[in-house]
Amino acid sequence: MNLEEQRQHILTGKMYNDLTPELVQAREDAVLLTDQYNAAFGQSSYIREEILKKLLHSIGDNVGFEPTFRCEFGFNISIGNNFYANFDCVMLDGGGIEIGDNVLFGPKVGIYTSNHAIDAAERAAGGCYAKKVRIGNHVWVGAGVHINQGISIGNNSIIGSGSVITHDVPANVIAAGTPCKVIRKITEEDKTGFVN
Amino acid sequence: MNLEEQRQHILTGKMYNDLTPELVQAREDAVLLTDQYNAAFGQSSYIREEILKKLLHSIGDNVGFEPTFRCEFGFNISIGNNFYANFDCVMLDGGGIEIGDNVLFGPKVGIYTSNHAIDAAERAAGGCYAKKVRIGNHVWVGAGVHINQGISIGNNSIIGSGSVITHDVPANVIAAGTPCKVIRKITEEDKTGFVN
Amino acid sequence: MNLEEQRQHILTGKMYNDLTPELVQAREDAVLLTDQYNAAFGQSSYIREEILKKLLHSIGDNVGFEPTFRCEFGFNISIGNNFYANFDCVMLDGGGIEIGDNVLFGPKVGIYTSNHAIDAAERAAGGCYAKKVRIGNHVWVGAGVHINQGISIGNNSIIGSGSVITHDVPANVIAAGTPCKVIRKITEEDKTGFVN
Repeated sequence: MNLEEQRQHILTGKMYNDLTPELVQAREDAVLLTDQYNAAFGQSSYIREEILKKLLHSIGDNVGFEPTFRCEFGFNISIGNNFYANFDCVMLDGGGIEIGDNVLFGPKVGIYTSNHAIDAAERAAGGCYAKKVRIGNHVWVGAGVHINQGISIGNNSIIGSGSVITHDVPANVIAAGTPCKVIRKITEEDKTGFVN
Repeated sequence: MNLEEQRQHILTGKMYNDLTPELVQAREDAVLLTDQYNAAFGQSSYIREEILKKLLHSIGDNVGFEPTFRCEFGFNISIGNNFYANFDCVMLDGGGIEIGDNVLFGPKVGIYTSNHAIDAAERAAGGCYAKKVRIGNHVWVGAGVHINQGISIGNNSIIGSGSVITHDVPANVIAAGTPCKVIRKITEEDKTGFVN
Repeated sequence: MNLEEQRQHILTGKMYNDLTPELVQAREDAVLLTDQYNAAFGQSSYIREEILKKLLHSIGDNVGFEPTFRCEFGFNISIGNNFYANFDCVMLDGGGIEIGDNVLFGPKVGIYTSNHAIDAAERAAGGCYAKKVRIGNHVWVGAGVHINQGISIGNNSIIGSGSVITHDVPANVIAAGTPCKVIRKITEEDKTGFVN
């Protein structure tokens, strides 16, 4: 299977070979580029943004990650405007990650779009399958949340710290737990009158 | 709202603006100082302690963090004597963190005193509110525990690995789970006769 | 108690003194050696393997950790062939860690073989006890899993992301949750026909 066939399998959720040399190389490149990005913390935002543009598929304005940011490939990640990820964010983006505008991540958030094969022999042979993760606008993901493959989180929703997300989260809710479940809707009563 | 007004809001649990330039700058300073601290691992304990004194509000004797330690500001953290945090500790200390004597943290412990606004528009405008975390004497917090804002943990208690603490933990208990609940009291029968 | 007596206590699950200067020094050495290993990412696999051989008790062919790998001592860790640990793996190996062939770790996996004493005074005096962790062949441990002391995971099993393992996991199952429980057996029907 050549790289283009692998990519088609990845995009369509079919099994692909995780050990394909081009994928292994792309992962190594991503680590070295995130090393550069992390080491550039405190330098001009222009320098950091240029590295991020090289690393990720697309980013809007005002996108930043506290150190230490890590990703699998980078080139399957699209992020909107005004994104902030706190410390130690990990994104395994084989299956693609789409993040809307005004999204906030607490520390130690992980997104994992790729799974290994369930069968041990297929797993040892490099078998993997991937599913895209989609995060809407105005979402706040709490600290230490694990987001599994294929998950969508709707606009404005909040995920409590330490949650493990195994099913889609609708818009306009607070959800938490392992596995993560909806706790309540967010309503007009949650407004505090804050203006900055 | 000026910085002093922000501070008053933070201390009293009122909404403040997380995006205030002085707060953004203070966060950046803290990352750079923790970089120094982490990089000084293996150097004389005097050098590391001097950095920690600059970074934190106050520390007792014999306070140390394995790499990679991260905090939001640092200057809202007070730690007693004989504190040890294992790898990858994160402290978001906007609302203040008070830690007693003889406290031990396993790897990957996180404390999060600041929350974003629940309302999406207020959150996008920088709205945050903070509540102090208090950890008593002789507490042992297990690996990967998440401690949310406003939590107190009583003296001598032990928190099991991977717990998410959403309610106060009383003194002299073992507690664990997501959410973290008391499992049992610690009693005289837990003594093994160990002397060093 | 001298170091040899401490080691005997560690190996037999008896209380030992965590604060013994030789143990403190060995921990510091391990951090500095993992620093070398992590910094050598992207260099020849020969260089990285040499550091790993120095750090760990024994490794098979094709063993690697993405950065940032951390361990307590290193010299109590044995790993078989074809091991891959994704980002931010932590191994507290006081009690020994044995890992079989063809094992995969997601990001942020932690193994903790040492526990502090339950009694506060014994804990403050350095009291610890350790129990070996054993991971079979063809095991896949998902992202952010916490593996507590004394745990065994049987061949071919899969642990879901964010799980906290408090009891042994048998062979040939998918297990997940906090605490981690068996969800189902892995069967012939899990084969997809993948060949690489």
